[in-house]
Amino acid sequence: MRIILDGMGGDNAPAEIVKGAVQAAAEISDDIIIVGDPGAITAELEANGYKGDQISIRPAMDVITMHDSPVKAIRRKTDSSMVVGLNMLKDGEGDMLVSAGNTGALIVGARLILGRIRGIDRPALASIYPDMTGGEPGMLVDAGASSESKARNLVEYAIMGSTFVEKVWGRENPRVGLVNLGAEESKGTSVTKDAYQMLANSHMNFVGNVEGRDVPKGVCDVIVCDGFTGNVILKLTEGVSMSIFKLVKNALKSNLKSLVGGALVKSNLTKLKEEFDYEEFGGAPVLGVNAPVIKMHGSSNAKAVKSAILRGTPYARENVVEIIGRELLEIEEYIEEEED
Amino acid sequence: MRIILDGMGGDNAPAEIVKGAVQAAAEISDDIIIVGDPGAITAELEANGYKGDQISIRPAMDVITMHDSPVKAIRRKTDSSMVVGLNMLKDGEGDMLVSAGNTGALIVGARLILGRIRGIDRPALASIYPDMTGGEPGMLVDAGASSESKARNLVEYAIMGSTFVEKVWGRENPRVGLVNLGAEESKGTSVTKDAYQMLANSHMNFVGNVEGRDVPKGVCDVIVCDGFTGNVILKLTEGVSMSIFKLVKNALKSNLKSLVGGALVKSNLTKLKEEFDYEEFGGAPVLGVNAPVIKMHGSSNAKAVKSAILRGTPYARENVVEIIGRELLEIEEYIEEEED
Repeated sequence: MRIILDGMGGDNAPAEIVKGAVQAAAEISDDIIIVGDPGAITAELEANGYKGDQISIRPAMDVITMHDSPVKAIRRKTDSSMVVGLNMLKDGEGDMLVSAGNTGALIVGARLILGRIRGIDRPALASIYPDMTGGEPGMLVDAGASSESKARNLVEYAIMGSTFVEKVWGRENPRVGLVNLGAEESKGTSVTKDAYQMLANSHMNFVGNVEGRDVPKGVCDVIVCDGFTGNVILKLTEGVSMSIFKLVKNALKSNLKSLVGGALVKSNLTKLKEEFDYEEFGGAPVLGVNAPVIKMHGSSNAKAVKSAILRGTPYARENVVEIIGRELLEIEEYIEEEED
Repeated sequence: MRIILDGMGGDNAPAEIVKGAVQAAAEISDDIIIVGDPGAITAELEANGYKGDQISIRPAMDVITMHDSPVKAIRRKTDSSMVVGLNMLKDGEGDMLVSAGNTGALIVGARLILGRIRGIDRPALASIYPDMTGGEPGMLVDAGASSESKARNLVEYAIMGSTFVEKVWGRENPRVGLVNLGAEESKGTSVTKDAYQMLANSHMNFVGNVEGRDVPKGVCDVIVCDGFTGNVILKLTEGVSMSIFKLVKNALKSNLKSLVGGALVKSNLTKLKEEFDYEEFGGAPVLGVNAPVIKMHGSSNAKAVKSAILRGTPYARENVVEIIGRELLEIEEYIEEEED
């Protein structure tokens, strides 16, 4: 398999991107094509002592930055590492694209250049979400590709997330939950109420509404919500977690007695914090477009790049895009019925 | 002042409600009128050894439960403790109502029986939200009174929250933040974009968009969002906090070395957890109706009831309802302009 890596996207490009690629290459046999400024990328490969032929470079002399307007950037920066990478993926010169670049641009670019899967109204960004009770993490869809969603879109997110979790993560009959402000069927906005009915009528393993307090407790494998809510959930989880870890750390330091205790438990807490470390989780798949695209956090370091590559490969290898297309056909009928 | 207390609403009524009233009465000179079944309330007063005349009872023989449909319950259960309490408040037989009953019913009842403040389209439920960096808590509006909001409603939430925080909490020039999926003005839904412009044009101290990760960091005094998002934020914060405290506790226990350390730091962690304890925070004001109403959590115990009463009294004492009415006149003009 050939993995296309956006060498210039993100806060730490190209240094951390290239370093992560070198680390990933040591663990897989797939080829990695880094797209970007050949001079800069070559320098980083050399800095990491890389001498193999598993990693190659595809020149692209422009960069889409975090400040670029997504639509404009995709249309105008045709020699940017992101646009070149997306075109390579479209033309079959690679099997998957991994990028830490401008999220909005990557989603727009994926939609415009790769196209949507037939039947998908809105592609979505997924994100891995921790189970804080110690179980396997879940997948949250949409993590922010669209800020507003219709009921139909929420059902699409469910089918895409469910398929991904089943085929890529190998989890049978994934439990699908709908984020809502109450557990009862009658709760929520007109959109969540309609989506509830459609999901309940579907062939998916729909476990009902999920309230905010249960989101971190692993009650479902696929957490479905609109992109605004998804963005708030992800960032709030990060904000609350990090704030509490800081408070715990300060509490441990706050007196001499505790300082002794603090030293003793430090290793446990460090281990614990790592479970919530986004670097370990890998990237977030863009779902609903015609080829596998993985988005990494903009501030990804080498460790995060390596995780995104290693954890992302099954997205391409298991033909998830094709399977989502087939699954959609099964749900199309009752979605149309509901909307009439 | 006379505080009307719904004696029958909530999971632990009337026992914990009455116990909380007895505890509150010991700390304030205001009268407390408990509404509900006189036999049950008298028995609880006796069980708590109460012999004073600061607490009185107003009979009401019906109860609105958590399972009642809000609108139906308010219309039909005219002898319920909640409806009797709201009518007493309307008729001037008390200055404030505190209830742990059905949230939806309380909001509907407050709107129907007390009426909305002139100029308010949608009353809101507020909630106290912790500052996890150690500062004073903020106020989140709307915490779930409405599941959907227009831009105008968000501006109303801002003005109500801002007024409450200034007049009841005594915080000058409160910072107002709008929950959004990005910090930039151009981010969000059509509703948050419009609300951003109106807030920026207002006389309030608008500090801009607030992302999920900054919500727990005390970056503003008034956190403005629609009720769906507010509900998710509150419950997710609770879920993540409690999950992490549990993980920390387990980490401390996980080996003998840590067990020793764990015992040493236990007191610090307990203190820390109390900062996030909803029982300490008191109740949530219903804002935008013509008299002060405080909603307590349905599972409130005596400590929470006491907090809700003690922390709630300035809502009535400081004439906040009247001041919100005046503040609204100041913003009316530019809201109308924006909507034309």
